[in-house]
Amino acid sequence: MSKILVGRNITWHGAKITKTDRWVKNSHKSALVWITGLSASGKSTIATELEYRMFERSINTFVLDGDNVRHGLNKDLGFSAEDRNENLRRVGEVAKLLVEAGILTIAAFISPFKSDRSLIRELFQEGEFLEVYLRCDLSVCESRDPKGLYKKARRGEIEDFTGISAPYEVPDEPEIIIETDRLSVAESVDVILNVLKEKEIIYESDSRSSLLAPQFSKRMAGIAITKS
Amino acid sequence: MSKILVGRNITWHGAKITKTDRWVKNSHKSALVWITGLSASGKSTIATELEYRMFERSINTFVLDGDNVRHGLNKDLGFSAEDRNENLRRVGEVAKLLVEAGILTIAAFISPFKSDRSLIRELFQEGEFLEVYLRCDLSVCESRDPKGLYKKARRGEIEDFTGISAPYEVPDEPEIIIETDRLSVAESVDVILNVLKEKEIIYESDSRSSLLAPQFSKRMAGIAITKS
Repeated sequence: MSKILVGRNITWHGAKITKTDRWVKNSHKSALVWITGLSASGKSTIATELEYRMFERSINTFVLDGDNVRHGLNKDLGFSAEDRNENLRRVGEVAKLLVEAGILTIAAFISPFKSDRSLIRELFQEGEFLEVYLRCDLSVCESRDPKGLYKKARRGEIEDFTGISAPYEVPDEPEIIIETDRLSVAESVDVILNVLKEKEIIYESDSRSSLLAPQFSKRMAGIAITKS
Repeated sequence: MSKILVGRNITWHGAKITKTDRWVKNSHKSALVWITGLSASGKSTIATELEYRMFERSINTFVLDGDNVRHGLNKDLGFSAEDRNENLRRVGEVAKLLVEAGILTIAAFISPFKSDRSLIRELFQEGEFLEVYLRCDLSVCESRDPKGLYKKARRGEIEDFTGISAPYEVPDEPEIIIETDRLSVAESVDVILNVLKEKEIIYESDSRSSLLAPQFSKRMAGIAITKS
């Protein structure tokens, strides 16, 4: 680095912007909210509503799901066991970059296996990974069946369909359990927002449009890196 | 979706947050600034300084480089021709997600081949991909050689080293050319910032700490989606 600068009268700051710098600027922390559950348990619906409710509070947020990952980054992957693992591994790594960039990231994937979910958890620091298990009776999911996938699976037209012909491993210790066969979408999102507040990832704000919550700046002052 | 909501008295917004929504909230647009050039041409230095200067203006920004990609998302890839292509393909797709999330993304990669760079360009809408070519004489790069890589390459200890034993294909029509053997780091970054302003991706602001540039809100009003 120094060699590049030899003989030059320049101002170069050299310091990389850290995740903490971004938290201070944004007035909220970043983390990964990982939503897991059966097909039709409400993952996408809750992810979309959670994103809306956070955005409304000026939180930097983004949803990763099959729609935006399978058609781009992971379009080279199929649905073999190996490719499904790799699909989730990459999602975890992308989420890590987004969290590093200060984005309160939401991921909505069936992710039926404990091993995949814990590999992703391990990428994050303590408190930056929240597993949200949508507990919904299979019969309820099957009666919803918005894309007709359960019917196809019952007819044997889809192999290894979670809950029908492939297992779903219930999380042992998820940060949040939501019974989506009992709670409304709005109630479900409230549960997640409240946990994010309890964990001081987001903060109460008098005004939803306030971009700088004074109480947050105060709290964060201790860890903020001062640059002149 | 409707099936999930049947019989429930809930408020559900349903609408996904769009890139434009984020632009309005952030008071700047998002795009990918792709920095290409020989090893030691100054890519990382300029990327880091550009990030700093943008962050200082409250712009949401993030740098993708070998450091944060090769050790995570792309740690399964080696340095064969095929793996190098896949490395850059994935970087392009991740950048697309970041840009979708409203982040003014900076990528710093040698990326010696036109084909790789144009595949990435094609992922983006017109005006959202800016190719920045750091033009720096090979002899200058070689004299800098901060990591001793050129020496190793000359001794034949590194195969396919760009500029020595592998080609670098100069961009035909990059949005920006910077002669890093003539300009300082600060001057180089100024060039990029000025182009971002000309292209109305970022805006002049009276106060560096102002999070809402009124002139931007005005400009964006026409494309903002109003949600009540």
